[in-house]
Amino acid sequence: MSTFWSPVVRELEPYVPGEQPQIDGLIKLNTNESPYPPSPKVIDVINHDTIDRLRLYPDPNSKKLKNTIAHYYGVTAEQVFVGNGSDEVLALLFMAFFQQGKPLLFPDISYSFYPVYCKLFGIDYQTIPLCEDYTINFADYAQANGGIIFPNPNAPTAIGKPLAEIEALLQQNTESVVVVDEAYVDFGAQTAIALVDKYPNLLVVQTLSKSRSLAGMRVGLAIGHRDLIDALDRVKNSFNSYPLDRIAEAAAIVAFEDETYFSRCRDQIIATRDWTTAELEKLGFKVLPSQANFVFAEPLGKNAADLAQHLRDHKILVRYFNKPRISQFLRITIGTDEQMQALIEALKKA
Amino acid sequence: MSTFWSPVVRELEPYVPGEQPQIDGLIKLNTNESPYPPSPKVIDVINHDTIDRLRLYPDPNSKKLKNTIAHYYGVTAEQVFVGNGSDEVLALLFMAFFQQGKPLLFPDISYSFYPVYCKLFGIDYQTIPLCEDYTINFADYAQANGGIIFPNPNAPTAIGKPLAEIEALLQQNTESVVVVDEAYVDFGAQTAIALVDKYPNLLVVQTLSKSRSLAGMRVGLAIGHRDLIDALDRVKNSFNSYPLDRIAEAAAIVAFEDETYFSRCRDQIIATRDWTTAELEKLGFKVLPSQANFVFAEPLGKNAADLAQHLRDHKILVRYFNKPRISQFLRITIGTDEQMQALIEALKKA
Repeated sequence: MSTFWSPVVRELEPYVPGEQPQIDGLIKLNTNESPYPPSPKVIDVINHDTIDRLRLYPDPNSKKLKNTIAHYYGVTAEQVFVGNGSDEVLALLFMAFFQQGKPLLFPDISYSFYPVYCKLFGIDYQTIPLCEDYTINFADYAQANGGIIFPNPNAPTAIGKPLAEIEALLQQNTESVVVVDEAYVDFGAQTAIALVDKYPNLLVVQTLSKSRSLAGMRVGLAIGHRDLIDALDRVKNSFNSYPLDRIAEAAAIVAFEDETYFSRCRDQIIATRDWTTAELEKLGFKVLPSQANFVFAEPLGKNAADLAQHLRDHKILVRYFNKPRISQFLRITIGTDEQMQALIEALKKA
Repeated sequence: MSTFWSPVVRELEPYVPGEQPQIDGLIKLNTNESPYPPSPKVIDVINHDTIDRLRLYPDPNSKKLKNTIAHYYGVTAEQVFVGNGSDEVLALLFMAFFQQGKPLLFPDISYSFYPVYCKLFGIDYQTIPLCEDYTINFADYAQANGGIIFPNPNAPTAIGKPLAEIEALLQQNTESVVVVDEAYVDFGAQTAIALVDKYPNLLVVQTLSKSRSLAGMRVGLAIGHRDLIDALDRVKNSFNSYPLDRIAEAAAIVAFEDETYFSRCRDQIIATRDWTTAELEKLGFKVLPSQANFVFAEPLGKNAADLAQHLRDHKILVRYFNKPRISQFLRITIGTDEQMQALIEALKKA
């Protein structure tokens, strides 16, 4: 603490990302990264010419990447925004849309960065409890608000919402921006991008850090009505004109273009997830139905924190949240088949 | 404009970066990039293994890069902060230190992003006029304030302040944070980093976009007392945990380690600047004394805007600011010898 800090800084409780320890042979199932490398075509776009051009600023509007994403999703480039990971996109959209007089609404169990942004930008918020079965009930969001945000599928529960229910929410909530945070959507949920032309207050956020194996490259995106994208551009151009570097833009384009590789990795992760779920259930875990690249699992009759430590002793890292309602769960990223077999073996010894 | 925007967004007047047009054969002297590529050793750190690891998040603290910078400048890693270009570092420090009750002070002719940050974060500010000769007079800053920021050398004037005067300012101004924005310091001014151990309210900001030829990679840094760095970390971890991607961190490390290459490019740019200044003076320009990789030059007896257009017609891009006090100047980036010869030839035809 220092007298030189802005008053708001003293009140911050920053987000704590999952650990990134440097331990040989560690099986890292704690930050929902892909177990598979990015498309092998990524390296082809990095050559001597690319490196020489690093002396020049990147395109501040990342136009080529926006065109690629627009083509991929069947929208226009003016409906696409890109940023330095979906965390930056989220931060910018909290400024752009949620600095209103009324509280922002989001689930009580959800991405723990949401309340952190609220604190930083002085945004009033109200959390809405998940149902007993850990699902979101949109009827609970029918109240005055300055915006609504939720992940689909939700994290860390991994449970998704059907598109029809999201559309019903948009019909119910027309006066504020609704953000669907689709970080994990590719693993089994339905994207809401098809609805952006119909609902001018819908913004869909995605990341290339999960299903596209580019967590180390920092690329996220948002798709919505061009008036919403305009607001994001205004905030971005008042914050940092060039958030995407030249290599990040080039790698992201490849990640969307190499659809065959993308589908193969995603399908493999889904298959491994289903196998892992069945094995965990055999071991007496209650596993919430996952549409993500992780499972949220409750070791019935065992202490979750102790089990996380037991796994750590076996060089397997999973995520444990010491928080109300979820302190008896482990969030386990889906790795390769071999990694998940090692997990199951380690759990059998617990 | 849209009813969904946060009220603050409607009032924003975003920063307008220099153009990045895609025209073959263009001589680009408008955004103060380096005419030389980054160290040839950069490509060596990008191999198949680097690409495979892009599936993993980067180190959120960029510890290896911080260690490299700390070693280079003789400070501790706890005194170093890094971000996605110095623009992001500036945005974060405006939040961390300048959201005070009193106005932030900066020169009336200076980096035009400063008032943009103020608007975004609701920071009160007051501009202090430069002297008649376009220099900063620190005596004018002896007034109640919530912080002071200035570039050294200043932009777009290119004029630097001696270290002794900066130290006198720090002795005069002890109650608020003083930020020295050293984007161009390597081209002839003195860095204030030597003073950070003595003045707990001093923060020095640098970029790798100019003297280190990595504008396309987005890396900036700040050095100061660890209490100031703590505040920056708190804001950063409430905004975006992983602003530096894996390749940006690796390339930045090389840029500091390959000091021979760095010095060679910098010395060449200084030599070319001195030649360019002499040639411009022969053509009747008034050139402000430059300690940067650009010159700020007034074409006596000619209209600056017309001259910028004339150069553009000759495929040479320079920066023209249609602003009070400087609308008769051109800001010209120092390129290669050949590029500056082409500039002089084109000017002779005007």
